[in-house]
Amino acid sequence: MDGSDHLAHERSKAQFDVEKMKIVWAGSLYAFQVSNRIARLVAGDPAFRKENRAVLSRRELFKNTLRKAAHAWKRITELGLSEEEASWLRFYVDELSYAYVHWGMFVPAIKGSGTEDQQNKWLPLATNMQIIGTYAQTELGHGSNVRGLETTASFDPKTDEFIIHSPTLTSSKWWPGGLGKIATHAVVYARLITDGQDHGVHGFIVQLRSLDDHLPLPGITVGDIGMKFGSGAFNSIDNGFVRFDHVHIPRNQMLMRVSQVTREGKYVHSNVPRQLVYGAMVYVRQIIVVDASIALSRAVCIAARYSAVRRQFGSENHEISGTRVETQVIDYKTQQSRLFPLLASAYAFRFIGEWLKWLYTDLTQKLEANDFSTLPEAHACTAGLKSLTTSAAADGIEECRKLCGGHGYLTSSGLPELYAVFVPACTYEGDNIVLLLQVARFLMKTISKLPSGRNYKLSGATAYMGHMEHYLIKYSCNVQKAEDWLKPNTILEAFEARAIRMCFACAQNLTKFADQSEGFSELSTDLVEAAIAHCQLIVVSKFIKKLRQNIEGNGVKQQLETLCYIYALHLIHKNSGDFLSTGCLNPKQASLANDQLRSLYAKVRPNVIALVDAFNYSDHFLGSVLGCYDGNVYPRLYEEACKDPLNDSVVADGYGEYIQPLLNQQLLNARL
Amino acid sequence: MDGSDHLAHERSKAQFDVEKMKIVWAGSLYAFQVSNRIARLVAGDPAFRKENRAVLSRRELFKNTLRKAAHAWKRITELGLSEEEASWLRFYVDELSYAYVHWGMFVPAIKGSGTEDQQNKWLPLATNMQIIGTYAQTELGHGSNVRGLETTASFDPKTDEFIIHSPTLTSSKWWPGGLGKIATHAVVYARLITDGQDHGVHGFIVQLRSLDDHLPLPGITVGDIGMKFGSGAFNSIDNGFVRFDHVHIPRNQMLMRVSQVTREGKYVHSNVPRQLVYGAMVYVRQIIVVDASIALSRAVCIAARYSAVRRQFGSENHEISGTRVETQVIDYKTQQSRLFPLLASAYAFRFIGEWLKWLYTDLTQKLEANDFSTLPEAHACTAGLKSLTTSAAADGIEECRKLCGGHGYLTSSGLPELYAVFVPACTYEGDNIVLLLQVARFLMKTISKLPSGRNYKLSGATAYMGHMEHYLIKYSCNVQKAEDWLKPNTILEAFEARAIRMCFACAQNLTKFADQSEGFSELSTDLVEAAIAHCQLIVVSKFIKKLRQNIEGNGVKQQLETLCYIYALHLIHKNSGDFLSTGCLNPKQASLANDQLRSLYAKVRPNVIALVDAFNYSDHFLGSVLGCYDGNVYPRLYEEACKDPLNDSVVADGYGEYIQPLLNQQLLNARL
Repeated sequence: MDGSDHLAHERSKAQFDVEKMKIVWAGSLYAFQVSNRIARLVAGDPAFRKENRAVLSRRELFKNTLRKAAHAWKRITELGLSEEEASWLRFYVDELSYAYVHWGMFVPAIKGSGTEDQQNKWLPLATNMQIIGTYAQTELGHGSNVRGLETTASFDPKTDEFIIHSPTLTSSKWWPGGLGKIATHAVVYARLITDGQDHGVHGFIVQLRSLDDHLPLPGITVGDIGMKFGSGAFNSIDNGFVRFDHVHIPRNQMLMRVSQVTREGKYVHSNVPRQLVYGAMVYVRQIIVVDASIALSRAVCIAARYSAVRRQFGSENHEISGTRVETQVIDYKTQQSRLFPLLASAYAFRFIGEWLKWLYTDLTQKLEANDFSTLPEAHACTAGLKSLTTSAAADGIEECRKLCGGHGYLTSSGLPELYAVFVPACTYEGDNIVLLLQVARFLMKTISKLPSGRNYKLSGATAYMGHMEHYLIKYSCNVQKAEDWLKPNTILEAFEARAIRMCFACAQNLTKFADQSEGFSELSTDLVEAAIAHCQLIVVSKFIKKLRQNIEGNGVKQQLETLCYIYALHLIHKNSGDFLSTGCLNPKQASLANDQLRSLYAKVRPNVIALVDAFNYSDHFLGSVLGCYDGNVYPRLYEEACKDPLNDSVVADGYGEYIQPLLNQQLLNARL
Repeated sequence: MDGSDHLAHERSKAQFDVEKMKIVWAGSLYAFQVSNRIARLVAGDPAFRKENRAVLSRRELFKNTLRKAAHAWKRITELGLSEEEASWLRFYVDELSYAYVHWGMFVPAIKGSGTEDQQNKWLPLATNMQIIGTYAQTELGHGSNVRGLETTASFDPKTDEFIIHSPTLTSSKWWPGGLGKIATHAVVYARLITDGQDHGVHGFIVQLRSLDDHLPLPGITVGDIGMKFGSGAFNSIDNGFVRFDHVHIPRNQMLMRVSQVTREGKYVHSNVPRQLVYGAMVYVRQIIVVDASIALSRAVCIAARYSAVRRQFGSENHEISGTRVETQVIDYKTQQSRLFPLLASAYAFRFIGEWLKWLYTDLTQKLEANDFSTLPEAHACTAGLKSLTTSAAADGIEECRKLCGGHGYLTSSGLPELYAVFVPACTYEGDNIVLLLQVARFLMKTISKLPSGRNYKLSGATAYMGHMEHYLIKYSCNVQKAEDWLKPNTILEAFEARAIRMCFACAQNLTKFADQSEGFSELSTDLVEAAIAHCQLIVVSKFIKKLRQNIEGNGVKQQLETLCYIYALHLIHKNSGDFLSTGCLNPKQASLANDQLRSLYAKVRPNVIALVDAFNYSDHFLGSVLGCYDGNVYPRLYEEACKDPLNDSVVADGYGEYIQPLLNQQLLNARL
């Protein structure tokens, strides 16, 4: 590479303090410093290089990932990294392995559901990685519906053991990461049976493989479930299956924090509230929202930089130092109208993730004080935002890939793998449509309790529903010119009115059904749309709330304001059917929102490269020849191409057998 | 497998003659018979098995594809297949290789742009495959803008040769399939220079590799451009790059049908009209529309069958032979509202493809008679429909994958690769947004000529614009109850009114700009939306037209009517913002469309499995454990998983180096 910065001109145009924006994005100066230090550590370590991932066979890829995971653990130990630093390190290694499931699901499951004794026994083993764990819930025939799981854990009072068993093929555990080839232990979810009685699904610690020779223990059939989407992505990890044939485990390996089975086989509850389980769900989903903002921002960073480098067509009088050049792709309005809302979404999702983190902390404190009042709302909120942000991020990554034209289709662009590795977030930890239906159920419940008002407090993100009457009857949007859309309250009210009116219409239509569950099923697509309206409102309102905070740095707040307006107005444009059909806006006002959006695109344009620089992603982490910091795209594309194994030999492997006889018209005699 | 049909119950519910529908889908009894015969031939040949594609390394995959391509050619020759049969055979082999580009682009380029002499020389070589050709147009730095190509072909009068040269890195040819490792020849597009004068881009036949030893000829640097999206998909073909360093070719290797360079270096035109080039574009894009219907229908077939097999949650009183079972996923309204419109789209795109085939034939006849009057409209029409159908099909395939839950993410579902292999159609042969802008330009031109009326005939799919006054002033939709939406004319008028009003609004806004090209750029996102409205109208109107034909078979027409309404009404719901803001519908009417849609879903539900059976796709072609005909999904999923190379050994490769020392706390001493 020539060492010069091909995007320097773009960077010089920025109208704000990029370094300060980096801190806003990171969440705090401290968070910026830690993540920045670890990012550099990983990027500078040759053992963590990512190149060639895509060309490896499944076995090679998998083995290479084992090597990286071991090296990561070695470095974490050598450097004495804190738990937070270690988790940043695994994050920047950016290659899925058993370690993610071990640290992200196995350890938290024991912390969350194990008794103190169980934690004392298992956590030291796990945190030293003397055992490697996974989390086995979903089954071949059972995903979203946890209550439908078939695996059984039957208590045997004679031996004081549970017998873990897979009664059918469809009850095989299926999907857990790390299970296929690596994990020594698993938290297995199974129907607890005592004395012939089914107590529903509970968690059990089950050892899968010998700690001596790593062979599966008797009664356990375990393996990898095969290739998944993409050439790298989740193929670096051994998502697995396991079947249990009457596997015995000691009674004390049932996770007993909430409920226990006594020596006599009695099923009893502790005084620890069951609701804690929902708290754990809130935790996991909040992390996924943060992941969504990261995944989307990576894609946006790549697409923005390459759109500034790439030139196509162009106006006749455009010249640089006397040479006629084509127009930068980023200057096309069609490109802007697709890319800039995604940039705004990345920031919006970052802030909603930050807010959810606060929500979780707040919830935990309340739960510990036995206050469960905010749990349903927090649960619905997190479920809905997980759904909204992951769907938008997945679609947005693909849109960014398409915005890079043909080259976005190359693995070296980083975008195909980014999509393949992120998109399952739309399905895992709650299918996105199923989650929206849960949100809708909560909203309908909220509305149904509104008139009576008793025992029901409108908390958190549904507080606006307290103004139902205002929005159903009095509200009318007062926008008369495009600039009127630059008022946070105007935007907020429009989103609140739309959400309330859509929810209320659903509630009204539900009353027409004698059977509520039939009505809910019949109207479920409308309910999903109402839930989306509610969730979009939350994102918009928390972005606005963020802007009301003190934000340091020259021009930083102004940029965020522009992004906030872009986020909100592009949603109004995209969902104008909702706003118009509910009478929240008239066609003129919707059209003015669109006009204002165009002005905002022009306003943010000079800042776009600096706004993606503020994500502070290293070239190593981005892993994209199109998105590299210096914008020197074409030599890199060429260099990457040359590394493909097909280029190792000038004449292709297979020429002698399959091409030469063809060209020489001797194929009919050839043995193929 | 147990041999029983797990979907028999679904099939027994069908209310129409599936065998007759197969013929409608195929286009004719003849087309059905040929394609059916060849599909069985391919499916029954063990050499064409698809299994394990995803786990191969790039080199293995590529070599395996060479083997299949050679075997295909051998069978074509042995069986003496016609050109049509051969092309079906390559289609059902379903693995991209140099053969697709050779037959689909190289041969047509010579037929379309070569003189009779050139055709006589090159076509026999090509059709016997004594040479293998590719089509080299796009460059590393130049995609959509053909006029921006940098490669030069300078005439050297001294030697009577052209000198093909790549002056820069960005002028490297980039993307052509088969170029990287296989093609011996290419049609190369380059700027023709005679005597220092640039005559723009022309095509040249350039030999790339020796026919003796397959080594690149002097001055030619050629290779593969590296891995692309997905684990199979386009990685089976060697998309390549080539750089020319003053490569000499004889003058008669310029494709001279339209323009020539004489021995003296004079640049002259023949009497063959240039417009033929556009005719070729219409041809290629029409084929892509057919591809879109095939790709989408494959995905829909998989998702529909698996949705009928899969059960999740469920109503309390649902039992089969005394056992409580969960609800079939296909019975959820949210699943229906996502899946059924895609089923309808697959049929809609099939018929629009059929119509475009007719359009191309009609156009060719006119061009041969020197009648170019319908060319601009046909060109815009094909460009727009290519854009519309490929975007919808790509999104639809991903939606189908998500509709299969977690298992859709497994390569064995067939869906990840179906997406990865189809999605570049949104970019190649004209980026979808660039194409919509071309349509918009055509529409604005059409409108601008409307008032004067002179020398301008409204032909083909823009004929409705002749009723501009009616739709701008008098039109009002007369729907008052949900059933009113079941009238083809009501639907057609709503779509016409919406398209006209959106186009007219753009035209009006354009007049506000002094500089038309600035206005066009500024309003380009609105123009794209207007172009989409126009294209959706075409698809709806041709579906309706199809229904006015004589269609045989018990209940066949009724099913197609239901699908047509679903297609149209789901578009109204999805784009309700357009219909409402232009005043074509009021909120009540939009809501009635949605109500009617729900009834239509219930109506089509019992026929869905039979409607996807009508595509007549073999299990081999579908390549999906979720979509197999007999619905016996779970044993197949398990069987496929067991084949993964990671399962070849019980203890993972890498255990000794990377896992054992970790578990034994000896990692710090290990060499990684």
